[in-house]
Amino acid sequence: MLNTSKEMETNNVKAFGAENRDASLKQMKIQRREPSANDIEIDILYCGVCHSDLHTVRNDWGGSIYPAVPGHEIVGRITKIGNSVSKFKVGDLAAVGCMVDSCGQCSSCTQDLEQYCVPGFTGTYNGKDRHLGGQTFGGYSEKVVVDERFVLRVPENLDPAAAAPLLCAGITTWSPLRHWKVKKGDKVAVVGLGGLGHMAIKLAKALGAHVTLFSRSPEKEKDAKALGADAIVISTDKQQMSSVNAAFDLIIDTVPYVHDVNEYIPALNINGTIVLVGYLGPLEPMLNTVPMILGRKSVAGSVIGGIAETQEMLDFCGKHNIVSEIELIKMQDINEAYERMLKSDVRYRFVIDMESLKT
Amino acid sequence: MLNTSKEMETNNVKAFGAENRDASLKQMKIQRREPSANDIEIDILYCGVCHSDLHTVRNDWGGSIYPAVPGHEIVGRITKIGNSVSKFKVGDLAAVGCMVDSCGQCSSCTQDLEQYCVPGFTGTYNGKDRHLGGQTFGGYSEKVVVDERFVLRVPENLDPAAAAPLLCAGITTWSPLRHWKVKKGDKVAVVGLGGLGHMAIKLAKALGAHVTLFSRSPEKEKDAKALGADAIVISTDKQQMSSVNAAFDLIIDTVPYVHDVNEYIPALNINGTIVLVGYLGPLEPMLNTVPMILGRKSVAGSVIGGIAETQEMLDFCGKHNIVSEIELIKMQDINEAYERMLKSDVRYRFVIDMESLKT
Repeated sequence: MLNTSKEMETNNVKAFGAENRDASLKQMKIQRREPSANDIEIDILYCGVCHSDLHTVRNDWGGSIYPAVPGHEIVGRITKIGNSVSKFKVGDLAAVGCMVDSCGQCSSCTQDLEQYCVPGFTGTYNGKDRHLGGQTFGGYSEKVVVDERFVLRVPENLDPAAAAPLLCAGITTWSPLRHWKVKKGDKVAVVGLGGLGHMAIKLAKALGAHVTLFSRSPEKEKDAKALGADAIVISTDKQQMSSVNAAFDLIIDTVPYVHDVNEYIPALNINGTIVLVGYLGPLEPMLNTVPMILGRKSVAGSVIGGIAETQEMLDFCGKHNIVSEIELIKMQDINEAYERMLKSDVRYRFVIDMESLKT
Repeated sequence: MLNTSKEMETNNVKAFGAENRDASLKQMKIQRREPSANDIEIDILYCGVCHSDLHTVRNDWGGSIYPAVPGHEIVGRITKIGNSVSKFKVGDLAAVGCMVDSCGQCSSCTQDLEQYCVPGFTGTYNGKDRHLGGQTFGGYSEKVVVDERFVLRVPENLDPAAAAPLLCAGITTWSPLRHWKVKKGDKVAVVGLGGLGHMAIKLAKALGAHVTLFSRSPEKEKDAKALGADAIVISTDKQQMSSVNAAFDLIIDTVPYVHDVNEYIPALNINGTIVLVGYLGPLEPMLNTVPMILGRKSVAGSVIGGIAETQEMLDFCGKHNIVSEIELIKMQDINEAYERMLKSDVRYRFVIDMESLKT
């Protein structure tokens, strides 16, 4: 399956990336393959800025390959399609999320769970390019070429810039809401009001749940309620925390740094689950099993969502007119945006206007 | 509801208990109430010996009240019934497990989940006696008086001595098998081959699952297979551990002391759950979220089971002729039995022949 660049026709495109973990992002050239039979070429209009972009650029998780061109919240217009493409046509508004390929044959892939592909899915960036070899390059670029199986339709009624973060922040919170079968009247809580948290509130609310935000910051109440939260609980206030004892069927914990998950276990109802979608690493302080055992409570993890589920989420967002709250930036402002992101100084997602790269 | 001993007629019965955390268990007298309208008096024939008995006697968990008379795996014959008792008659073979009362009105109790009673169930021992005041006394005694709602029927085809451990070890492993909907053909693993572990193997096998035992001890293979396990994996052998990568839908972890739960996460299939039923305390080393997130895996806890579920388990055991593997001891040998239990020197549950207390 893996072709080398010698065999494939490629095109030079402009991109923004980092040469090493200590470097700022700067303009560079990368290669995109000429679309094969099943491929779609997309002219990128907007690309959301995810925490993972920054972690990859700085090699926070190890394993980064340089040059690193991040970006996996991609929305654009289709400019070319391969001969065998059936689901899309030139001119369609299309999107690409965190995955551009998977084995397609394992027990996960055959259940529309490409995000749990057993040999591993191909990340939109920093993955192993199955066509050209080398690493994959993400959406901080003019164009991207992707197998149609990993291309999503974007409802035309949505603002394409504000729809971009649905491809990661949206699906990452949608998937647990669906897997744990959240329905009208369920009590759902969200920990943390950032890119993921604000989408979790909007999506849970649109599913009919009663939604509570856990936050350390009382000043977030106004925003949380504007986004659809029914209540906010200040997680540093013991009295407020005890007021939600056994209150929630599902808690979606979006906090991306280490924090004490034990604090939220009492807020779970019997049989409840807290699902971690933000923090990758050891649970410190140590998770105490006692309240889990005495209430049949679960601590779980979840990553993005499958392609079919991502399309379902986009269609749901189209129907309910849900998009991300964004701050539009130029490609050239990305390094400053990363610094602001590290200070949580963004409401609630930066999105790059790719026009800025082209001019 | 709470009557004092002044208002209730009581009877002296012989029991075995500890006067303080450092004391050996010795014979003593305790009070049992004369059965009220809904009560059943049981002449105790056999009482299983659970790790919790030892932990309570030695105040390992804090909160022990002395004198402490343990025992919550009780099987006996009904000797008296109250006027309103409808489900039992004198002479029936009956059992009492870990609970003798609950509020009956909370969201858990009304769903047959008395084990998760919101104000807390009344433990068979070391609970707050709702009738006489003071603490409840367990099954290391001649007789027990219990509200019929918390009395179970024991199938007459089962050996009553070997059935006793079903009331705690049995239901503790049955409840997660049922809650996580184990069915024919599912892949289930059990961590640890003790009182709980050996029941988990028997019950999972009878439900039609393919059952694997995780153990550190290769010499347990013969026993595990005799109990119904299809396979054994030595948890200290890296090669064996990697051979069961993503193999199990459910892992029941019965280990009662701190251990590294991270080792078992790779053995869970996508969407799998490891449920802890043995160890109460902080998870050390720290639980790592990465493999949980990348496989939508859960770590959960579970405690005993509801009364209806316990009856279901006893009936299932009657139908499949399942009992515990036991070593019958005299009441007077309990202190030595505790020492042997601490060395895991029991296959697989001590049961006290209560005749020894009466003579």
